[in-house]
Amino acid sequence: MSDLAERAAKLDAEDALAKVRDEFDLDPAVVYLDGNSLGAPPKRVAARVEHVVREQWGRRLIRSWPEGWWTAPERVGEKIAPLVGAAPGQVVVADSTSVNLFKALVAAVRMNPGRDEIVVDAATFPTDGYIAESAAELTGAVLRPVPPDALDEALSDRTAVVLLNHVDYRTGRLYDMAAATAKAHAAGAKIVWDLCHSVGVLPIELDALGVDLAVGCTYKFLNGGPGAPAFIYVPAALQESFRQPLSGWGGHRDPFAMEARYAPAPGIARARAGTPDILSLLALDAALDVWREVDLADVRAKGLALTGFFIECVDELTGDAVEVVTPRDHRRGHQVSLRHPDAEALVAELTAREVIGDYRAPDVLRFGFAPLYVRYQDAHQAATTLADLLATG
Amino acid sequence: MSDLAERAAKLDAEDALAKVRDEFDLDPAVVYLDGNSLGAPPKRVAARVEHVVREQWGRRLIRSWPEGWWTAPERVGEKIAPLVGAAPGQVVVADSTSVNLFKALVAAVRMNPGRDEIVVDAATFPTDGYIAESAAELTGAVLRPVPPDALDEALSDRTAVVLLNHVDYRTGRLYDMAAATAKAHAAGAKIVWDLCHSVGVLPIELDALGVDLAVGCTYKFLNGGPGAPAFIYVPAALQESFRQPLSGWGGHRDPFAMEARYAPAPGIARARAGTPDILSLLALDAALDVWREVDLADVRAKGLALTGFFIECVDELTGDAVEVVTPRDHRRGHQVSLRHPDAEALVAELTAREVIGDYRAPDVLRFGFAPLYVRYQDAHQAATTLADLLATG
Repeated sequence: MSDLAERAAKLDAEDALAKVRDEFDLDPAVVYLDGNSLGAPPKRVAARVEHVVREQWGRRLIRSWPEGWWTAPERVGEKIAPLVGAAPGQVVVADSTSVNLFKALVAAVRMNPGRDEIVVDAATFPTDGYIAESAAELTGAVLRPVPPDALDEALSDRTAVVLLNHVDYRTGRLYDMAAATAKAHAAGAKIVWDLCHSVGVLPIELDALGVDLAVGCTYKFLNGGPGAPAFIYVPAALQESFRQPLSGWGGHRDPFAMEARYAPAPGIARARAGTPDILSLLALDAALDVWREVDLADVRAKGLALTGFFIECVDELTGDAVEVVTPRDHRRGHQVSLRHPDAEALVAELTAREVIGDYRAPDVLRFGFAPLYVRYQDAHQAATTLADLLATG
Repeated sequence: MSDLAERAAKLDAEDALAKVRDEFDLDPAVVYLDGNSLGAPPKRVAARVEHVVREQWGRRLIRSWPEGWWTAPERVGEKIAPLVGAAPGQVVVADSTSVNLFKALVAAVRMNPGRDEIVVDAATFPTDGYIAESAAELTGAVLRPVPPDALDEALSDRTAVVLLNHVDYRTGRLYDMAAATAKAHAAGAKIVWDLCHSVGVLPIELDALGVDLAVGCTYKFLNGGPGAPAFIYVPAALQESFRQPLSGWGGHRDPFAMEARYAPAPGIARARAGTPDILSLLALDAALDVWREVDLADVRAKGLALTGFFIECVDELTGDAVEVVTPRDHRRGHQVSLRHPDAEALVAELTAREVIGDYRAPDVLRFGFAPLYVRYQDAHQAATTLADLLATG
């Protein structure tokens, strides 16, 4: 056994989160390092979905709406709240990340009348920029894409809102939420954080940092299932002034009164739009229960250790064949991105060998390390397989 | 056996659609007359969802995205297309009805520059009016609610778009799609139809009538499941000019190229927004297979016969105790609405007796008759139970 293999075995044996892996339905033949894109299924999801279909839908039928379905968006939101540092009543699950970004950006511009610029991370996950462009057009604002490191120069008394990704999807770099939030506020701007790649990765302190609005998806490190509904955070202090454009009946103060005019619900429910998607929402509900016995500080510690160990393995086993794009210090999420001109072919070959990461154009191999179910031996095996591929061309 | 009971038995025995009831997972103790709000589960849904969770998600993991998940919105849309008279490539499943209404209305206003009014059915299902109000605000238009019968007087050279419900959710009245579409077009306006209460009820001819845009839900007569994703229709001729505001990566011409700027897909995919919600979408996919062996003309004939028979039973058994709000001629969907001052209490009592309809404020009892699984004996039993309740006060 190599030194690295021995290290991996020892680290796995000492891992405080090792038992959480039993909560997941994993294929033992696969090294799954794409939980940053689609989390693996918690075992309890299948049974829960079957119950929802056969019992709640099949037997209770329409009666299930008042028996818990209608308020599920808020109830499931409360399970996400502690993962993002939000007190109760401030997170709701609804729609997709793209749709929630639109709600957040339009609402934020409306909160800041007289200002007409939306500043976005120029390297953002594309949907954020696309949606921001549309929000700008409809609110009469202009879009200003800037590198996150150049935020200082971009902010002015024209900045209505800043939209940033907490973790860069391509490089895995983690941005300083406290610093950027403070900068935006100092300039009089609102800030919206996209937490897709950081929720479930590290403790987030939305309330403590005074973040204005945040959105995130639930199908990556929260393991909610493919395309599971997203969430949106609106702090209590801003709910009254949160006027969002997708004013469907779901966000009405009294949806079943069938009032002719829209009047938003007093709390976080005003961030809802249409009828909630119950099958997916309750699959997510079950998936989130995995987090009840998990401390995010442990998750973060293991995530840094896992990604650090993987980088170490890559360095030692592959030499200079690939470039590690992800920061080597703590400023990273739980993914490691490597650059290689044949990235796409390499990812395909790794997948053929049951080591599953993913490819992002034009030249990035991404590997996600979900601390709830990824082991150090997985990191080692992935690096070994990659090294073999590189060595044999 | 009463005459009505005998008639019901005879009608059920002769029913060409009777065997389709076997496709549904129904509680034999329940008379379910709320399929106009939440359709009953087709049996095949539970097995399909389990397969998606355990195999596609659990075993194929991220590989399922290119293996069919990513294109599921269009593929499932093609199953809805024949139900609404649409040639292939014009229907996509995505988001909620509210969200799709927003896409449709903003796009329609943009197609009609120089016009600044959105005309909506004043008695519309509330979410339509709420969303239209927001679309108007963001596009600089004004909202003009009018009774559908007064459409002639409301249309002018200021009308950008007309939004109508094909079937009124409260009364069950069916509007004349051909006539209203022709009127809107004669005035130079675009028309958007909300098909929530008519899809799966009767043959709809969107292409033949030259309808501009349409949306609808899939959890009523299409039996897709609670909050199942909605659909949107954009005819081929208008796709190039369909510029919708929820420009997420799902509608991009090349989503995985991660281009910095939004460029819409050439076809119906441009009506997509964020990441599709796969569990719910594939539950719907399975549910729609029930329609493969069903002729919509048969469904319509049985729906009219069922609702007509129910009205006849109500007339004969309850005397003048309730008012039949639904038109007695063919201008109705597959629901019957009755008016009574104690509607809410009556619906609760009926439910306690396993006859499930629903209540709409302030005084309407609604009974939906889904021809795929509701029998004439169900209609008779519901009317009998209602008559008993009314007689005993």
